[in-house]
Amino acid sequence: MKHPPRLAELIEALRALPGVGPKSAQRMAFHLLQDGRSGAQTLAHTLEAALASVRRCERCRMFAEQELCAVCASPQRESSLLCVVESPADVVAIEQSGSFRGRYFVLMGHLSPLDGIGPEQLGVRALEAILDEGLVRELILATNPTVEGEATAHFLADLALRRGLTASRIAHGVPIGGEIEYVDGGTLARALAGRQSV
Amino acid sequence: MKHPPRLAELIEALRALPGVGPKSAQRMAFHLLQDGRSGAQTLAHTLEAALASVRRCERCRMFAEQELCAVCASPQRESSLLCVVESPADVVAIEQSGSFRGRYFVLMGHLSPLDGIGPEQLGVRALEAILDEGLVRELILATNPTVEGEATAHFLADLALRRGLTASRIAHGVPIGGEIEYVDGGTLARALAGRQSV
Repeated sequence: MKHPPRLAELIEALRALPGVGPKSAQRMAFHLLQDGRSGAQTLAHTLEAALASVRRCERCRMFAEQELCAVCASPQRESSLLCVVESPADVVAIEQSGSFRGRYFVLMGHLSPLDGIGPEQLGVRALEAILDEGLVRELILATNPTVEGEATAHFLADLALRRGLTASRIAHGVPIGGEIEYVDGGTLARALAGRQSV
Repeated sequence: MKHPPRLAELIEALRALPGVGPKSAQRMAFHLLQDGRSGAQTLAHTLEAALASVRRCERCRMFAEQELCAVCASPQRESSLLCVVESPADVVAIEQSGSFRGRYFVLMGHLSPLDGIGPEQLGVRALEAILDEGLVRELILATNPTVEGEATAHFLADLALRRGLTASRIAHGVPIGGEIEYVDGGTLARALAGRQSV
């Protein structure tokens, strides 16, 4: 059955959302046009507004509405600690843990030469500029524990070490609250290799 | 961590989508503002356009851009068969089965007195007007096999029978390709009760 053209376009456009296939795009479109019309109007407006005013922090590349994001603008953050992450969602997760008082740098990806993503695309020049200011003492590498994330961490550790700074990698191991029985082999291997004396 | 206001509003607005919680709303917002900016612009525009031009078919209440939907406007559809369904998605599913050549009537819900949904809200007057035209011979009740769907089907069957029309309910039983071993008890009971001689 062919949908009316505007409806078909809406279903197609909803597939731009991550994790939304044709079936859930249709379900979303029907909901928006049926019971959710006021929510749909709000969504269209807020989306336009966000596209117009949300940009990147000029220092750390996190989402921001001003020149600097809240973290970079805050004088209470320790400028000696810089935590490098792959995505804005990682910043949110670390902030929610409440366990870090330094600043961030968001790569917006990881090194992936096959996809044409090199240091340039990850803003490594901006990162080097921050390191060259001389305030940062430790570069904390919190990229994902994947092949690309590890490669990116190695590459960035080099930048720090060449400047005589400390470079550290966040610990990988058995998650708190997890049961060892159900933890995968790769994680267990890392947990054993990274064991610390008590 | 507090998001910048426009970003926070976008995350909140995305929760208007069915099945989207706070975590996936954030994931969607980040994606739209990060790699998906052109898709996001398209989404905002198509959403506005659909809200402005998609309305209900004046006859069957299906989504349409004209006065009548494609099915109601087509002269090739049998006007003697009218299939009543709860939602536009049901029409799409039946059309995709390619097994029905009649017309539809979309209730946009089911009888649910506790939620204030009575015959009025389901457009039963419009349905009665169609039946009173005298073209429909059989009313096929394809509401969902839930308590409310069954109640709605009974109520509508009455309307048809009072007018001397045939009322039928779609068959319920073991799905094709399903294994009897894994079919729930309620379905098996319906399958046995609805057995037909070979």
